[in-house]
Order: sequence, then structure tokens, then C-alpha cells
Amino acid sequence: MVPRKYPQLAEPMGEKKMTITQELAKRIHAISYDDLPAEAIPLARAAILDAIACAFVGSVEDTAKIIEKIPGFAGASGPCAVFGRDYRTNPLDAVLINGTSAHALDFDDMSMTMGGHPTVMLMPVIFALGDQLEISGKDAILAYVVGHETATRIARGVHMHHYDKGWHPTATLGVFGATAAASRLLKLSEDQTATALGIAASLASGVKSNFGSMTKPLHVGHGNRNGLYAAMLAKEGFTSNDHAFEHKQGFLNVFNGPDTYDVDKMLADWGQPFDLVSVGVGLKKHPCCGGTHPPIEAMLTLRAENDIDVDQVETIDVWVHPLRLPHTNNPDPKTPLQGKFSQQYTVARALLEGRVKLEHFEPDAFGEPEIQALLKKVQADVHPKMTHETTPHHGAEVVITLKNGEKINSYNEVDLGRGLSNPMTDEELWEKFEDCTKRSLAADAIKPLFDSLQSLEKANNVKEITDLMLYPTKAAQSVAAE
Amino acid sequence: MVPRKYPQLAEPMGEKKMTITQELAKRIHAISYDDLPAEAIPLARAAILDAIACAFVGSVEDTAKIIEKIPGFAGASGPCAVFGRDYRTNPLDAVLINGTSAHALDFDDMSMTMGGHPTVMLMPVIFALGDQLEISGKDAILAYVVGHETATRIARGVHMHHYDKGWHPTATLGVFGATAAASRLLKLSEDQTATALGIAASLASGVKSNFGSMTKPLHVGHGNRNGLYAAMLAKEGFTSNDHAFEHKQGFLNVFNGPDTYDVDKMLADWGQPFDLVSVGVGLKKHPCCGGTHPPIEAMLTLRAENDIDVDQVETIDVWVHPLRLPHTNNPDPKTPLQGKFSQQYTVARALLEGRVKLEHFEPDAFGEPEIQALLKKVQADVHPKMTHETTPHHGAEVVITLKNGEKINSYNEVDLGRGLSNPMTDEELWEKFEDCTKRSLAADAIKPLFDSLQSLEKANNVKEITDLMLYPTKAAQSVAAE
Repeated sequence: MVPRKYPQLAEPMGEKKMTITQELAKRIHAISYDDLPAEAIPLARAAILDAIACAFVGSVEDTAKIIEKIPGFAGASGPCAVFGRDYRTNPLDAVLINGTSAHALDFDDMSMTMGGHPTVMLMPVIFALGDQLEISGKDAILAYVVGHETATRIARGVHMHHYDKGWHPTATLGVFGATAAASRLLKLSEDQTATALGIAASLASGVKSNFGSMTKPLHVGHGNRNGLYAAMLAKEGFTSNDHAFEHKQGFLNVFNGPDTYDVDKMLADWGQPFDLVSVGVGLKKHPCCGGTHPPIEAMLTLRAENDIDVDQVETIDVWVHPLRLPHTNNPDPKTPLQGKFSQQYTVARALLEGRVKLEHFEPDAFGEPEIQALLKKVQADVHPKMTHETTPHHGAEVVITLKNGEKINSYNEVDLGRGLSNPMTDEELWEKFEDCTKRSLAADAIKPLFDSLQSLEKANNVKEITDLMLYPTKAAQSVAAE
Repeated sequence: MVPRKYPQLAEPMGEKKMTITQELAKRIHAISYDDLPAEAIPLARAAILDAIACAFVGSVEDTAKIIEKIPGFAGASGPCAVFGRDYRTNPLDAVLINGTSAHALDFDDMSMTMGGHPTVMLMPVIFALGDQLEISGKDAILAYVVGHETATRIARGVHMHHYDKGWHPTATLGVFGATAAASRLLKLSEDQTATALGIAASLASGVKSNFGSMTKPLHVGHGNRNGLYAAMLAKEGFTSNDHAFEHKQGFLNVFNGPDTYDVDKMLADWGQPFDLVSVGVGLKKHPCCGGTHPPIEAMLTLRAENDIDVDQVETIDVWVHPLRLPHTNNPDPKTPLQGKFSQQYTVARALLEGRVKLEHFEPDAFGEPEIQALLKKVQADVHPKMTHETTPHHGAEVVITLKNGEKINSYNEVDLGRGLSNPMTDEELWEKFEDCTKRSLAADAIKPLFDSLQSLEKANNVKEITDLMLYPTKAAQSVAAE
């Protein structure tokens, strides 16, 4: 993006011209459910369902459990379900823990526009307010689409400079999506919504240096809480500066810096089309590094198209783009984190089981004799025909050499995560949902919950869906990276 | 400050070298109460007492009252006093509201080093944990000095670039002071403290564009909450990146930018001497703009040294530094905010009453016939001998011309707020304390509370002091700027 110069306003604009937060607020409130394009509904529904799956699996991690230990947490009663638990609490505490849980394993969806994870910054707010206000499924979907559009439109205006500087856009931009979704559900006026966005500008936070620690998912829970809090405060009459975005010491100049953003890109063409429809979100099918997905997909194709006897495999060559190899070349993983970043291990699992599941990253999984035997045959390298300049960056090739000398191969070019061109099927959504929820939700509660989320737009009252969530399994089990 | 280049670490340092958060943590834990210089005790005590006064007067503002309306707030029970109320709550909610209250009127102290307000980022955390852990007054003072040193040392390393960019240093730097104070009181290990500082780097927030709105004091409450939260999470085993400060996408590079900070200035010479002792904090004696304080002081001197009959006053000339006049030249204020920024009004009040009090900024005060008559005689202008280049910037002269032609004058040169060279007396501390607390604390509870805070270092249990706070007056009354 070549940033266009936009007036760096030292002083408030003239009275008649709307400020950026006012312009955003107008757009946030301009859309009704009936305005949504038909294709947005299943996209929103799948993203929400997927994020709930991630919240359930994340809820058993220490990252979430520690939050519950802090004095005061959930001591306040309230109507909002805590995913993976058997209690409800107040909305601010609910979104803090549900948001953190949903991002704890980095298994949630991605937006290329945002350079981050859009849905975990929206879903917790929508369900917490859903429980509090007993909203309909249509309201939930509308709030999702509007929140997604807000975060991604602001992203268009500040990226990639914003990302490259070291901000965690999931949190620093997602907070405005959370505020927008909450503003719709709380029925804020346009003025109150502008105020809420201005408050959120002062609460936005999160630096990328904390990637790799529990603080990364905390950015999500904290951002959810802040976005919702900003909307709640604005509804009660709290004030912020109308020029909180464009002021010389406002969000754009302080977080990005002068001449590094383009306000027109934030405001033009809202919903024409929606970013959710035109760019979409990438759902993550496999519970491991996105850079391992293309070879996994190549191996699954190879496996589906050939009758492979594992005992007859002599070697497996995994060829990836040179950008993908350095952090995923782990020939002999011993820990969950190493396993998630191992081309060798994940492709071996794909061949052996036809699927890569959460349990494959539990500490005991790595020592299993069958996988150990296969692992010794796998080598990963840069694809001979790919250089740093080769695009797209997500291609991979897997070549199996059999003991009889025969070679079979599969080339696969998958978008980061799963793009619109290659959506997860309902079957794949179910497999992930079941795999993610079974660690913290009673077995017989999983399918009814999945079915209700699969028809979210038909729900009269979101709280009836969260009623299905309050049956935790006794055997909650962590799959955390150590 | 000419920034020195410090290695911009793209990669973690070698294992043997400590990171910045580890270095800070070592210093935070190196000091005991007995190590404190004797002069630090009364300085810390006065700052804490003054901030509590500010919290009481701020607690009656909408800024604080709105926070109480948000679902979940204070629904959780706990041991921590809410200033100006009759209940206790959990520590996170207590510091959120007490911190916001303490900064609601901008009547709290200033640090020239920090370019912000140090004590409102420390006092709420110290008293909330004081209530929870029933700490001694000595522990409270030690936590204050350590927290103040942490915030001001980090400030030395990042200013004035940090300030000029548009961050609100009270919040973005004060959060680390809050974390440091909490780390001492919660008895974190050095490693846990380093982790807490790393978490706080991801929670730091607050842009100056929101100055002039309720969101400015919210920065303080929110920053208190975040600093305390970071310490509580670290104590329970939460993780952050050890290199959260110096990482190329860490606090220093993301908030300040490469080559705009000096880590040596943060780490060298801690407590030798303490910034609290060598630079100090400026307590605010009068409840109005700092730029009106020098003429008020000049008038109070003139009044003390002369027997002035107000009826014999022909004119009053107020001469200030050219930097101070533009925003304080309000000859006929009609609103609280105009009054606080009026040289004419404040100096007239000083002559008439010998003091400038909170009640002088209530809406009805401006129309009183006596003050209206006097106001017509006051004119404010730039001092004939001062130019933009004249230093210091805080001088002022007041000249009264009597009807008999006689002129009496006083020149006064006061540091911003009240510096070490010109501290508030115990009498002045009491006058402010009484003026601030009487709107939200029962009259007979004020003096006992003041006395107990004046001997804070002798308290065995801070909770016995907060017991004295839980008697709100029925007639709580706002003095907010509209």
C-alpha cells in the first residue's frame, strides 16, 4: 500500500464536517440484517462456530485457568456463559476469559486484511451480550458482520505499516470491531458509538514481542473486555474526544505515525462488498502451524488418491516455500510446540491417520512406535523450484518414494488457513468442533450445540444456545504447548 | 535529551545477560524500608495523602459514578475500600474506580521527570493491596518509593520523545510503577516481577487526544488496574516474553521507536538518589490551572504583607509569562472550566478570601456581587519584562493600584505545582484535604483520617486507615468542569 497523505489534523475539524469516529459510527449503524448479502450468513456462522470450538479447547489451558484465580474474577454473578465451565458471570469477565481461551492455542481464524484473528475479538462480545440481552441469532450475525467490517476497514487504512511496527492487530484493531459489535447490540446511538470508538482508542494495546507467551491470547481477552467496556461506558454518558482518531496525538498518529495511513480506505465503500465476503476469513483446519498446512493437504490428497501401504514407504520428501521452512524444520519433535512446528511430524501423522488431531500434540503422542518409525523416513526441504520471490508463498509438494522405487507425488497450493476458494466443509467443521469441545464439554452435549450453531440465524434467543454449553466434561485435559 | 543508541535487539540476548525487565526487577526488589533516605518518608506520605484527597473529591464526579453503573462492577465482594463510598470490593475494581476518581479533576501531583502524574498510578494499588494483605504503613511507603522510582527511571529513558509523540505518560509509564509497587506488596520473585513488567508492556495504553474528556482520568484507573493485574497474573504463573522491552517489536521500539530511548538512563543509579528526593513531585495547592498559581501566590503574599481594603482598590494588574496567558485570559468566566483558567477570577478570589477553594468553581460562585465588582478591576497581560525566551516560565507579578494612587506589588516565582524548594506546609495539606474530602466524607471522619495518613509510617495495618474512609457524607456534590 502506498499511503496517501490525509490531513493531519492538529485542530478539531469545522463543526459541520464529521470526525472519523462519527463517520465510522454512521456506517456501523447503517446496516440491517436484511441488507446483508446472502453469502455472508454462512460465512459468519462458520466463523462463529469455529471460534467457539477454539474457546472450548483453549478453556482447559493454564492461560485461561490462571485468569480465574485472580481475586474478583467471576465473583460477580451475571448471565453470561463461560465456555468450558458450568457457570455464568458478568459480561466483562465473560469476554475476558472466553476471548483469552479462544486464542490460547492459535487455532482460530485469520483475516488477510487484518493481519490477525478477527473472530475471537467479536464472538465473545456477541455471546456475552447475547446472554445478557437475550438477542436473536440474526442480531448476533449482524453484529458479527458489522464488527468484522469495522476492524478490517480500519486495517485497510493503517496496514501494513501498523503490523510491521510491532502492534498485534488482532488486539489493536480488533478492539474497534468489538466496540462496533457491542454498539449495535447495546443499541447505542451514532454519537454514543463515536464516543465508544474514541474511548477504545485509549484502551487499545498489545505488542508483538509477547508472541509465544500467554500474554498473546491475553491481548484477545483484554481487547474484548476493553471494546465492550468502551461501549458500555459510552451508553452511560462517558465522554471521549470526537477527534480521538485524527488528532495529532490521536490513534492514527500515535499508533501508526504521520503519513502512514489512509483514512479514505477506512471510510469508502463500506459493505460494497463486505470484507467478509470479498476477502473472507481463513479457518484453520489443522491444529498446528499454518505453514504445515499445505504439505498436510498435499499428503491427504495423495493418501486419498492412492492406496498407500505405510510399510512400503521408503522415504517422504516434503518440499515447501523457503519462507516456510526455517521455523517448521523439526525432524524429531519431543514437545507439543515442536510438534506443531514440524513439517516432518505433521505430514507423517497425515499419512498415518488421514487427519491431524489435537491429541497428536499431547506429550505422549511423539513416542508412539508407529509414528517414530515413519518419522525417520521424512525429510523436509525447500522446494527445488521455489525461491523467496516465488508466489504464492503457500505451495508445497510431497513426494513418496516406495521401496519398489516408484514415486508418487502431490502438489498443493492452499491459502493461508482456508480461503473462500477452499472452504471447510460441514464435515470438516464438525470434526474440528468435536475434537475441540470434547475436552471440556460432556460428550452428549456436543452435537446439539453444533447443530444449534449451524442454524444460528434461526435462533430466537442466543441464551438458549449457551444453555447447551454449561455441561463440562469431568476429564478436561490440556493440549497446551509447554 | 540526546538519545544514545542502544542495541536494538532483534533476537533474544545471550543467556547470561539479563534482559531489561530482569534488570528492572532486580532493582525493584533490592531496596528495603530501612534503605530509604529519611527525607523520602515525608515526601511519600504527603504525596499519598494528597492523592487520597484528590480521590475523595473526584469520587463525586460522573466520571467515577458511571464506572459504578457497568454490569459486574463491584458485584464481586472484597476487602478493598472504595474512596468516597461506604463499601469495599475486590482489588481490580477498587483501583479502577479509585484511580479514575483521583485524576478526575486533575488536582493531583505532577512529576517533571515523568511528564505526568505519578501518585495516582501508585496510591490506589498500594491501598487496595494494603486492604487485601493488611500491610503496614512502612510497606506502603516502600512500595510507593519503589513504584515512583520505576516509573520515573523508565521515563528518563524514553522522554521527551515519548511525551511528544502523544502518549499519556501518566498511564503508559505509570503502569510499570503500578506493577512494581504491586510486585513488592504481593512478594513476587524477581523473575515473576520481570514477567509482570512484560505483561504490563502489552496492557499499556492511553493517547493524549483524549485529554479534556472523561477518558483522561479513565487512563489512570485503567492503568492502575492493568499494572496490578499484570502482577497478579505473574504471581499465578502467567507468562510473557523476557525481552518484552528491548525486542524489535517490544515496548521501547513500538511505543517510542528505534533510536529514541536510552536504556542506560533507565537502569543506572537507581535510588542514588531517588527521583522522589532529587526531583520530587509537585503538589497542587489551588484547584485551578497550574498557570494561575504564580499570580495567586503573588496576591496571597501581597495580602499577607499589606492591610488591603478591597473597596479602595482601583485596579489590579496581573502580569504573567507570555506562555501562560493565552489559555488563562478569561476576564469574565461563567462556567467552572472558564473559572479554573481565569487569571482574573482566581487572583480576585485570592484577594477577597485569602484562598482559592473548590467551591469557588461551582456554577453559582461566579455571579456573586462581591466577586463581580472586583473582577471588573482586574486585567491580565504579559509581564512587560518577560519574553518567550525568559526563564523560568512560572514567574508572575501582581500590582494593585489603590484609589489614592498608591501602587503595591508582589513578584512571585513558583515552580509548576509546588516543588521541593517550596513544599506545601502541613496547614496547607490539611486545608486541601479538608476541602477535598468534605464533599464525600462525613465531617467528623475527616480529621482522624488526615491524622492517620500524616503518620502513615507508624501504621501497623493499612486497613485500619481505610476503615476511617467508609463514612460518606449524604451531601456529595460535584465540582466538575462542565
